[in-house]
Amino acid sequence: MSADMQSRYETLRAEYETYQAAGLKLDLTRGKPAAEQLDLANELDGILDGFYILQDGTDVRNYGGILGIPEARALGGDILGVPAANVMVGGNSSLTLMYQYVTFMLPKWRQTPDTPVKFICQVPGYDRHFTICEHFDIEMIPVPMLEDGPDMATIQELVAGDAAIKGIWCVPKYSNPTGHTYSPEVVKQFAALPKTAGDNFAIFWDNAYAVHHIYGKLDSLTDLMSEADSAGTADNVVMFGSTSKITFAGAGISFLGASSTNLAAFEGHLSSQVIGFDKVNQLRHARFLKDAEGVAEHMNKHQAIIEPKFRMVEDKLSAALGGKDIAAWTTPTGGYFVSLDTKPGLASRVISLAAEAGVKLTPAGATFPHGHDPEDRNIRIAPTFPSMAELEPAMDVLVNCIELATLEQALAT
Amino acid sequence: MSADMQSRYETLRAEYETYQAAGLKLDLTRGKPAAEQLDLANELDGILDGFYILQDGTDVRNYGGILGIPEARALGGDILGVPAANVMVGGNSSLTLMYQYVTFMLPKWRQTPDTPVKFICQVPGYDRHFTICEHFDIEMIPVPMLEDGPDMATIQELVAGDAAIKGIWCVPKYSNPTGHTYSPEVVKQFAALPKTAGDNFAIFWDNAYAVHHIYGKLDSLTDLMSEADSAGTADNVVMFGSTSKITFAGAGISFLGASSTNLAAFEGHLSSQVIGFDKVNQLRHARFLKDAEGVAEHMNKHQAIIEPKFRMVEDKLSAALGGKDIAAWTTPTGGYFVSLDTKPGLASRVISLAAEAGVKLTPAGATFPHGHDPEDRNIRIAPTFPSMAELEPAMDVLVNCIELATLEQALAT
Repeated sequence: MSADMQSRYETLRAEYETYQAAGLKLDLTRGKPAAEQLDLANELDGILDGFYILQDGTDVRNYGGILGIPEARALGGDILGVPAANVMVGGNSSLTLMYQYVTFMLPKWRQTPDTPVKFICQVPGYDRHFTICEHFDIEMIPVPMLEDGPDMATIQELVAGDAAIKGIWCVPKYSNPTGHTYSPEVVKQFAALPKTAGDNFAIFWDNAYAVHHIYGKLDSLTDLMSEADSAGTADNVVMFGSTSKITFAGAGISFLGASSTNLAAFEGHLSSQVIGFDKVNQLRHARFLKDAEGVAEHMNKHQAIIEPKFRMVEDKLSAALGGKDIAAWTTPTGGYFVSLDTKPGLASRVISLAAEAGVKLTPAGATFPHGHDPEDRNIRIAPTFPSMAELEPAMDVLVNCIELATLEQALAT
Repeated sequence: MSADMQSRYETLRAEYETYQAAGLKLDLTRGKPAAEQLDLANELDGILDGFYILQDGTDVRNYGGILGIPEARALGGDILGVPAANVMVGGNSSLTLMYQYVTFMLPKWRQTPDTPVKFICQVPGYDRHFTICEHFDIEMIPVPMLEDGPDMATIQELVAGDAAIKGIWCVPKYSNPTGHTYSPEVVKQFAALPKTAGDNFAIFWDNAYAVHHIYGKLDSLTDLMSEADSAGTADNVVMFGSTSKITFAGAGISFLGASSTNLAAFEGHLSSQVIGFDKVNQLRHARFLKDAEGVAEHMNKHQAIIEPKFRMVEDKLSAALGGKDIAAWTTPTGGYFVSLDTKPGLASRVISLAAEAGVKLTPAGATFPHGHDPEDRNIRIAPTFPSMAELEPAMDVLVNCIELATLEQALAT
């Protein structure tokens, strides 16, 4: 057995050295669309054809209107699954809206500078959610992400037992990075959660991948806002979305969905820092994407581009690592990532081996609060940005490094 | 004398009643460009013609780059009068950049929640500067705006005597609302100010009207950043500007100018809330305005539209109120406003008389912190947005109301 392992190790090591010698410069870190996907929305620029006046008479070129133009609010409602009246349309970043919503809530949460404020964070999760918490000294409590959503039993217990827990970050559909979608049961449990939580508990429902399928069929996500309405907890829910991965990643529009009460209060909060977001770009997007159907048609074009990339990742992982009890990974049907777990203690080693062979991976721990993966095993793979010609050798290197690191560990013990 | 006054009062009152009967609906409140001015930039939409890649290879459609694209930083440098390397290009609002810069500085200013923080505010001044202070419980100390800048002797004394004064709001060129430009001497005094101030004193230099002349000739403003460099106070200066009143008021790009040290630190501060501002719109603006010369040519087109409006305001005020010792007003050569002072105690009355005759004016006190004009005399007139056909009757009503209110007061005493 050990002789087999040693021989396999040497084969892999030799292969690894050929990769090293090849002078590769590949990158699997970037959860961003490829240029080919961005091209799909090129006609955004110029789509207005000189018409800047809305049906209600608003001149989108001029100042004002924090909630956004009706046409774009309707589009946001289609994407978030809430009525247009509950939608604010922001600038090019939903992350900025999330940050601003935290600043809006913070005075309610932290009545004195020493009041502890805690958030629950699904792990693995989205590093930029964690960064916002770090920025405001909000303590993060990691809770594992399961196949049907975060571990709700743990969350329910935590929330009921500690009134300092004021919020939770969620990516409910094609979650970042596992790609799983919350089940109807989990969504219902979320709607009930604020009833046992402390005051002003807020569910940050970051629906970043609402319409982003990979294999031609969209998961359905139970509508949290309806469930919360029924449960009487709608004021504890705030939803986010954007067109960043629909049109232009850096030049789209963002959406916030909230109860009427919260929307009005948040608009008031923003009024000291914002006169209005870019309504010209809002109108471009409304003209270009039109409605739910228009969005769906557009996303089918993305799907055609990204499906081969996700298939390549799955095929390479299956072919090289399948049945070997070396790694576990997700096979998402939507979103932007594949989440892979090595044996405990190996993620950093794999990432550093790959880096030395010219393949950049997201830093170990990035999917955990404070960049600390306690088991050092999670690796986030982002297949969309590289071309197929780049992705193939990058995956070859990655699977080699995973098996190599696993054997290194086994041989050392 | 009193009989003359009574008779004049009755004439004015009769005239006023005809205005009331006319059912006017006019608005002099809005410091925003007219549609005709916005039309000048209509070709922004479509100007990219499918080209989204910069010379350095950056795809402006994708994520990233908080400092902005080189082409837009150069344009901002031209407008602010600082090197491109000292410029960050933001989204559609310089107000948002100012707010964010205050949040960046606040932890340095307010080490405990009870630490008082104070700002000096020129009065009359810009209400949205005051709103930011109110939002953060920053105490405002009003200092009168004179013809060559704010009253520097008072400011120097205040700053030297109170280390809790951490900042000052300035609109150094075509100031809002008086239209005056700071003299070279005042700018030099600003550069020296931080030397006698408390730690982390910040000069907020909101150069909103840097290129906005009315009569064909641009005031020159001494470059504060050069002066501050010489004085060793460059880290105490932060400059703001935007294209809001150059291209589209609600869909332009904004600029922040700062020392390299501050720019890097501020970029770090923003990184928890911003992935990058809209680079597509930055590229549109760089293509459209090109450089200082392109901006100047474009501003000449604005000038042709706004000059007759400012002339109308001046002519109406001179004809009706000149030589009567009833009101004093500015005759700005740039910017967006005319500032008018009634006799003490009359601004509210004038504004309410005008409102009852269908002419909306900026609320009394708006140009003072907390909306409180201690002498109740300042009225801000915004001539750009109404058409000439609207501006003329609006000014007729305004001058009528000013004289009427003055006579009411005189007759009552």
